[in-house]
This record gives sequence, C-alpha cells and structure tokens, in this order.
Amino acid sequence: MNATSSKARIGFIGLGIMGQSMAGHLLAAGHPLAVYNRSADKAAALVAKGATACATPAQVAQQSDVIITMVGYPSDVEQVWLGAEGVIAHARNALLIDMTTSSPALAKRLAEEAAKAGHQALDAPVSGGDVGAREARLSIMVGGEASAFEKALPVLQLMGANIVHMGGAGAGQHTKMSNQLVIASTIMGVCEGLAYARAAGLDSAALLKCIGGGAAGGFQLNVMGARIARDDFAPGFFIEHFLKDLGIALAEADNMGLELPGATLARKLYDELAAKGLGRLGTQALFQLYTAGG
Amino acid sequence: MNATSSKARIGFIGLGIMGQSMAGHLLAAGHPLAVYNRSADKAAALVAKGATACATPAQVAQQSDVIITMVGYPSDVEQVWLGAEGVIAHARNALLIDMTTSSPALAKRLAEEAAKAGHQALDAPVSGGDVGAREARLSIMVGGEASAFEKALPVLQLMGANIVHMGGAGAGQHTKMSNQLVIASTIMGVCEGLAYARAAGLDSAALLKCIGGGAAGGFQLNVMGARIARDDFAPGFFIEHFLKDLGIALAEADNMGLELPGATLARKLYDELAAKGLGRLGTQALFQLYTAGG
Repeated sequence: MNATSSKARIGFIGLGIMGQSMAGHLLAAGHPLAVYNRSADKAAALVAKGATACATPAQVAQQSDVIITMVGYPSDVEQVWLGAEGVIAHARNALLIDMTTSSPALAKRLAEEAAKAGHQALDAPVSGGDVGAREARLSIMVGGEASAFEKALPVLQLMGANIVHMGGAGAGQHTKMSNQLVIASTIMGVCEGLAYARAAGLDSAALLKCIGGGAAGGFQLNVMGARIARDDFAPGFFIEHFLKDLGIALAEADNMGLELPGATLARKLYDELAAKGLGRLGTQALFQLYTAGG
Repeated sequence: MNATSSKARIGFIGLGIMGQSMAGHLLAAGHPLAVYNRSADKAAALVAKGATACATPAQVAQQSDVIITMVGYPSDVEQVWLGAEGVIAHARNALLIDMTTSSPALAKRLAEEAAKAGHQALDAPVSGGDVGAREARLSIMVGGEASAFEKALPVLQLMGANIVHMGGAGAGQHTKMSNQLVIASTIMGVCEGLAYARAAGLDSAALLKCIGGGAAGGFQLNVMGARIARDDFAPGFFIEHFLKDLGIALAEADNMGLELPGATLARKLYDELAAKGLGRLGTQALFQLYTAGG
C-alpha cells in the first residue's frame, strides 16, 4: 500500500472561492480527491493537480469515504444531500460533512437522513473568509456526534486552525449564526462611528489609530473600518450572502421566541442596499447608506 | 531651583475613580498638585501623598499652570469652567484641559471663552476605563490648537499611552463620540449573538473560543462577552454614563443631519434597562434584556 492509498478518499462538492482553496489543501496532503461543481470549469485547476472531476454529486459519493459540501444556499445543500442524484443516496457508509453556512434545522434533518442510510454526518461551517481558506487557518464550528468529529478532525485540520466541537447536529450552524449576529450589529456600529467622524471632519486614519486599540476595537473596526477609511467597498464577504445568513439566523431566533432588534435593523439596512443593486459589494459598504443621503 | 519646583504646577478637579488614579500619576511624577472634589473626602488619599486640597475650583485655578477637569456631566464641566468660582475667571494664563467625556459643542465654547480670558484650552477625553487610568495606559483623544497640544503632551503622557491630536477644539470630544457610537451597536451585537447561543443550548465558553478570534472578535466580544458568559454584570462602565454619552452623540449627529438608527436603537434598549433600575450595572448587562423576557 503506498502513502496515497492509505489516505481517506475525499469527495468535495462546491468549488467556489472558499471551496477551491479548501479542496486544494486536501489534495496537497495526498488524499485521493473527487470533485463536483455545478459550473464544471471551476474543477479544471484541481483536476490539473490530480483530482478526478465528476458529473454528478452521486459520482462523487460513489468513490469517497469522506464527502464535503461547500455550496451556496440551504436549498443547494438540500439538493446535493437529499436529491435523487445526491450524496446520501449514493454514498456507502461515508462521513458526510456540510461546511456551507446553512440552517441549523436543516443540519438536524440531514443528520437524521444520513443516519438512516448508514452514514455519519457533521455540520461544520467556517469563518475566516477567502484568506483563511487559502492559508488553511479557518475557524471551523462543528455539530454532530463526537465519534464523527474525531474521525473528521484530521481532515478538518488540513483546512482550519481553530476547530471546535460545539455539540450535536446543528450546533455548528447555530455557532455560525451567533457569529453572524455579533457581526451584524458590530458592522453597523463601525459604520455609524465612522460616518459620524466623517461628518465631524475627523481624519479617519487618525481616528482608527486613536480608538482601534480600545473598547471599540476588533476585527470589524480595525479591518473593515480601514477599508471604509480608504473608500474600499470590494467584497471580502458579499452583502447578499450576509443577507442569506441573517435570514436564517432571524428565522431560527424567531422559532426560539427570541427577539433580536439589532440584527433585525441591520438586515433592514442591508435589504435597502441590496434593493439599490449593491448586494455584490462587501459588508462594509453599509457605510454608504449613512453617507449617500439614505 | 529644586526638581519639584521646575515642574508645572497642576490643578486637578474631579477625583472619581478615574480622576483619582490620573491625579496620582501627576503627583508621583513630582508635579505640585492642587485638587478639588465636590465631595471633599475623596481628596484625602492624594493629600496624604502631598497634594493641596482646595475649597473651590477658583482656589485650584489660582495656584496652577495647568488645570485638568474630570467631572461627570457637561453641566458640571460648564459650572467648573464658566461659573463665578470657576477656573476661567480665576486662572492666570493657564492651560486648561477638560478630560471629561462631554459635548463637542461645549468644548468649542469653552475654548473660545478660555481664549478671551488669556488661557489655552484643550478637550481631551479618554478611553481605557479604570484599569487604563490606574496603569497610565489611557487612550487620550485631543482637540485644540497644536501649540496647546505640544505644551500638554508631557503631562498627558503621565496618564496615557496612546495620545492623538485629532484637530481643533471639539475634535477630541467628537472622537470619543465616534468611539461610543461604535461600541453602542457592537455590544448590542455581542448580546444578541450570546443570547441566541444560550437559547440554542451552546456552551458560551466554547462559543467564545470558537468565534472570538475571527471576524466577530474584538474587545466587546472577548472581554464583555466573557463577563456575560459567567453572568458578571458588575460595572466596568455604568449604563447611566453610557446613556449620557449616547445622548450627547445622538444630539450632535442630529445637529449634523446624520441619522444613526443602530445607536438610536441601542439607546432605546439601555433606556429600558435604566427604567428598570439597572442603570448602575455595567454596559454588558444589556444581555439581560434578551434573556429576561423583555
């Protein structure tokens, strides 16, 4: 048995900016890798390095011990996992890991369906963006059974630096929702503080130097605030994806009887931006709502 | 001339938790120090170390080259600076520094009145809390003329570690307002994310470990969030003082024609807490609004 064949065969579905980098790390570590993407051309770079391109999720499932999905919306996850050509129907005693940011309720349902078909399943969404994915330094928040987590850990460690088992099925997604809820109001605060400063005639760079190390400081002020200060609204993270996440989080909160006025307000403001056609800007573009006269 | 008499004579008005520590650093550095506090007993510890207790702000002013005020509300600042027994009327060619968090409009007016009486004036509010004051590591955000800033710098350096000249009169207060506006929505986001997590059954400590180093991370999540996780709502910073600051910031924003819905919402929520008699808890107690059934 050579070094390569001793490694788990991995399938990777969803080769966007994040998935592309993440799958690349698995391949570089010597795992046989089968890949699928809805737009097949995105598989080319990985195939050139030795991955096997598949025509359907089912084909990926048939040749993999571990199957990772990193797609767009919960509806995509549902189709890839539960569809007739999906991974649950076609995998054999596999470990299925959804790393898409998706619904906690769906994660629980997928875990149940996977178990019925003889698979183990984890929800394992990530944080850290394109840079984190490229540098294999993602935070990975995992929900599911402990035995599945232990089995997945060596694979997850190839993609992330801070991997935490948060609880049973859905706990990974719940953790990601908590993360997004913190960010929602925080970026609103950053934009309001910087909009106030600009209106008051303060220099943004001096302001960040002055307050960035104190009680207002953090990733959103220090990284996103610096982008705002130089009028850089290019996406690290798309507004339209953030709106997807907030929609899931607020629906879950509503199911739990929890009112979240800050995140509700942030979603309303982001909805206004999206309605203006700005949904493909980065989340820091919320600043524009405060400076463009509404 | 001995070492002590070569140092500027400093007056310090307002010996609360912050002022007490700040004045102590000036005394320890060898400055002759005259002090005044509305409740005279708060001067005792400094007097025991060599400070001179005064019965009025006027007495402080008469014997000081540099006069620092660190009082409660803008109305207190106004009285101490502009009153018949105030420092502008009784100081002689002095450098006046208001370190209270107060109104930018008032700071401009004080600078004008001070100039008319032959003084220089700075607004120099701080950030960093009781710990920053104790350890002389405050951030100090300064507004006023450059020549006054240069003159004040050696004195400010005895109290702070990050001292930035932000512009003309009022710019220091505007900077502090920006800081508070960022915090207002950020702490709301932290409370919502943690309230969601608790409702979803996640372990708060694991959550902070998982998301504290990422895009949600910062002082509010990592320090205030940790206090929330152990149900510690004791004040680092009183809700009632934060409400004072938000009142000033939102009034200034309103004057500039700037709508700040996030901070407006945060103020509304903090008003609800204050109305329940919780104004002397720390700002992180906003969490209680999400978990106590409103």
